[in-house]
Amino acid sequence: MLTYSFENRGKKSLYMFLYEQIKQDILSGTLKAGNKLPSKRALAKHLNVSTITVENAYEQLIAEGYLYTVPKSGSYVSDITALNPFKSRHDERIPTGTFIREDRTKETYFADFAGNSTSPDTFPFKTWKKLNRITMTDCVEDLMIPSPPGGINILKEAIVFHLMDFRDIQVYPSQIVIGAGTEYLYNILIQLLGRDKIYAVEDPGYQKISHIYHANNVPCVHVPLDKKGIKIDALRKTGADILHISPSHHFPTGIVTPISRRYELLAWAMEQPDRYIIEDDYDSEFRLAGRPIPALQNIDSAGKVIYMNTFSKSLSSTIRISYMVLPDELADRYNQELNFYNCTVSNFDQYTLYQFMVKGYLEKHINRMRNYYRVQRDTLLECMRAQPHYAKVTIKEEHAGLHFLLEVDTKCSDEELVAKIAKKGIRISCLSEYFHNKKDAKKHTLVINYSGVQPERIEEAVDRLFAGIFGD
Amino acid sequence: MLTYSFENRGKKSLYMFLYEQIKQDILSGTLKAGNKLPSKRALAKHLNVSTITVENAYEQLIAEGYLYTVPKSGSYVSDITALNPFKSRHDERIPTGTFIREDRTKETYFADFAGNSTSPDTFPFKTWKKLNRITMTDCVEDLMIPSPPGGINILKEAIVFHLMDFRDIQVYPSQIVIGAGTEYLYNILIQLLGRDKIYAVEDPGYQKISHIYHANNVPCVHVPLDKKGIKIDALRKTGADILHISPSHHFPTGIVTPISRRYELLAWAMEQPDRYIIEDDYDSEFRLAGRPIPALQNIDSAGKVIYMNTFSKSLSSTIRISYMVLPDELADRYNQELNFYNCTVSNFDQYTLYQFMVKGYLEKHINRMRNYYRVQRDTLLECMRAQPHYAKVTIKEEHAGLHFLLEVDTKCSDEELVAKIAKKGIRISCLSEYFHNKKDAKKHTLVINYSGVQPERIEEAVDRLFAGIFGD
Repeated sequence: MLTYSFENRGKKSLYMFLYEQIKQDILSGTLKAGNKLPSKRALAKHLNVSTITVENAYEQLIAEGYLYTVPKSGSYVSDITALNPFKSRHDERIPTGTFIREDRTKETYFADFAGNSTSPDTFPFKTWKKLNRITMTDCVEDLMIPSPPGGINILKEAIVFHLMDFRDIQVYPSQIVIGAGTEYLYNILIQLLGRDKIYAVEDPGYQKISHIYHANNVPCVHVPLDKKGIKIDALRKTGADILHISPSHHFPTGIVTPISRRYELLAWAMEQPDRYIIEDDYDSEFRLAGRPIPALQNIDSAGKVIYMNTFSKSLSSTIRISYMVLPDELADRYNQELNFYNCTVSNFDQYTLYQFMVKGYLEKHINRMRNYYRVQRDTLLECMRAQPHYAKVTIKEEHAGLHFLLEVDTKCSDEELVAKIAKKGIRISCLSEYFHNKKDAKKHTLVINYSGVQPERIEEAVDRLFAGIFGD
Repeated sequence: MLTYSFENRGKKSLYMFLYEQIKQDILSGTLKAGNKLPSKRALAKHLNVSTITVENAYEQLIAEGYLYTVPKSGSYVSDITALNPFKSRHDERIPTGTFIREDRTKETYFADFAGNSTSPDTFPFKTWKKLNRITMTDCVEDLMIPSPPGGINILKEAIVFHLMDFRDIQVYPSQIVIGAGTEYLYNILIQLLGRDKIYAVEDPGYQKISHIYHANNVPCVHVPLDKKGIKIDALRKTGADILHISPSHHFPTGIVTPISRRYELLAWAMEQPDRYIIEDDYDSEFRLAGRPIPALQNIDSAGKVIYMNTFSKSLSSTIRISYMVLPDELADRYNQELNFYNCTVSNFDQYTLYQFMVKGYLEKHINRMRNYYRVQRDTLLECMRAQPHYAKVTIKEEHAGLHFLLEVDTKCSDEELVAKIAKKGIRISCLSEYFHNKKDAKKHTLVINYSGVQPERIEEAVDRLFAGIFGD
């Protein structure tokens, strides 16, 4: 009969130890397919353990398929073929305590003009924490009701009022879909609009958009810009169905598409029923001069514009809440075809953001941030003007907010420029990096993203930047 | 010269009002393309406002493209063609106060055996709230550093230890990708594994999986099951490359795939380099009898299994945090091809969950929930046994946790059964609903999901259920 010593079982329970021993004998071939095991009572008596111990061990082996039972006969070893190719990985124990900590690559630079993160000092932690606490105290039941696919209705309603106040856009909550970041929403849009469409993006532009289209294997074309934005004739030549743009503040050139071109773009979209324009309005709240530029959605009465925006820009890039406004026809299609998807934003975040909005904190925060960014920009510009080499640079598009362009009079290639500046501890990107068609690429133009730079480092950062550009 | 009365401007600033008036005149055609506007000083004097007011209004109109400037000449009206087809939507003001509140369809049922939500009483609010507060006090800087694409490293590390403890699985943090729900991760997997692959799902099975494949336009085949799970010969016939299964607890049949079939499945995957098995281990923590069934990943030494699990099941369906464990080769591919995607889970949730795990709360919570579900199930079974018609039902797979099957001796069709039960205020689903190939569908079998039913309602819910089944 099967004999096992329980001496070395350590802290394991008797039944667990017995289960492991028998399993090992099956895996090693000591117990062969078809072998009958002793009855529970007999084995219990033989091993001097309780019947319940053997029963538990047998049941686990049966549940996992190592044993099978024949009614009124007993337990037998299963046929476990194809075993040999599978070696055990259990020897390769993971050494504990060797795990990597969070990546702090940012820290290797003195200042980062290439990233788009926000400074920790600007996030309204105290308010967010308070509202979080209120949410978890007052909304206990609501928090446990699964969110509708497009987001909770009261948050959608808050977004409707926000869009009215900030963008003069009038939409219904039923048109809104909330998701964990615009990248996620682009994925949903591809499923909604179809993979048989040709998607057009701006050249130059935010490269991640085309990465997403490529990862999804949908045709993606790059349309050049003139001073007013997308070139209509070039757009027509591509045969595009869907156009993806940021008409109110193009990244990285800062171009604002004027009203005449906007009507031309809408007219293009209206020529075919399947044509749509995705309007990415990512930083419209932060225009630093005059009123915000109206959204393209604002003049679209034909249901051709899909409006997208994110709270990651106005609050923090580490909070993942974005939304899109679908034209009625697409909203209906979404509800018919894609509403099986659960909302990707947790209820906790949705209810907290809802409170943040309806209690007026978002508006206050945006106003505060607009001032903060204005001071950032003014300080930057002032420090630049004080540089001895200031005459060799030209600043462009400095009113748009969050970034501007710095044209440099230099003979260095863009790669050399970036490398020289990096040596001074400054991370920067060039306008040319954002061009798909490299022969059109505008050279010697730096993109200055200032949203994430610590205010107290600006002066030294500018010194280093200019030392990098004009030093050896 | 342009003349506007400022009397009716309400609360608007002078410049805003002037901007709107001029814009209106351009849109209506009163001011025509090419018309020259008066100089700022002249108009200011004429309207009796300050020059700065006119300057601000002009600048906004220039920024939006309604006007353009000719250096040393002045401001001119832009050519806004293609205007006529666009009617103004501004008349259709949204009536405020008419928005819908949260959908509480659940409330229309006395008890819901078809949903998979969790009861609000079971979520550890107090602890989660406390950890949330600690996170927002102690991790301020960390919270503002963008998460790596696959999630923050310390949470991945916590998941590694959790998998060791609960599933005896040994993996490295670098293999883990965290995302906002398994549905999102399936979308990422399609992009990782390729659209040229054939994806196989279980028939019967969780229908949402095939919806996702269809929404992504990838070929999806349905493979029938026998008592051990996926039929290998049927699988071969489909020509599938990727197999999507829940071997440790199939939904809704409750089948546990035995070890022999697991080896056969792994052997199938090893025949071709591009074959992979997606193991959805969604409720493995909640097996109510014996030890948990080991994961398929556990015996995979060839890097063929993609392991998936979610915290939505163990914590709350309204918290969207799931993860997958990629074999090394796929983890490398993910890092090369898809790491441009931002993590879809906010840092706040990631750090809170991290603390919840390393401080031992998750383990405690799972143990508490296992007991809670055991009591739920036992109460349910007891109430069923007390029913006069108990002899006409057969209970199956009641040890698996979270759901079991109830075979009913009846002449009603499944649709009639569901309708009769609904009339008694009980929402329920039938096993047959989960079959793709309806001719294989097993009839007269109800799926009893008990995780979301309120304990105090169980007794009456069972009375109503049986009244629905066996009443008129």
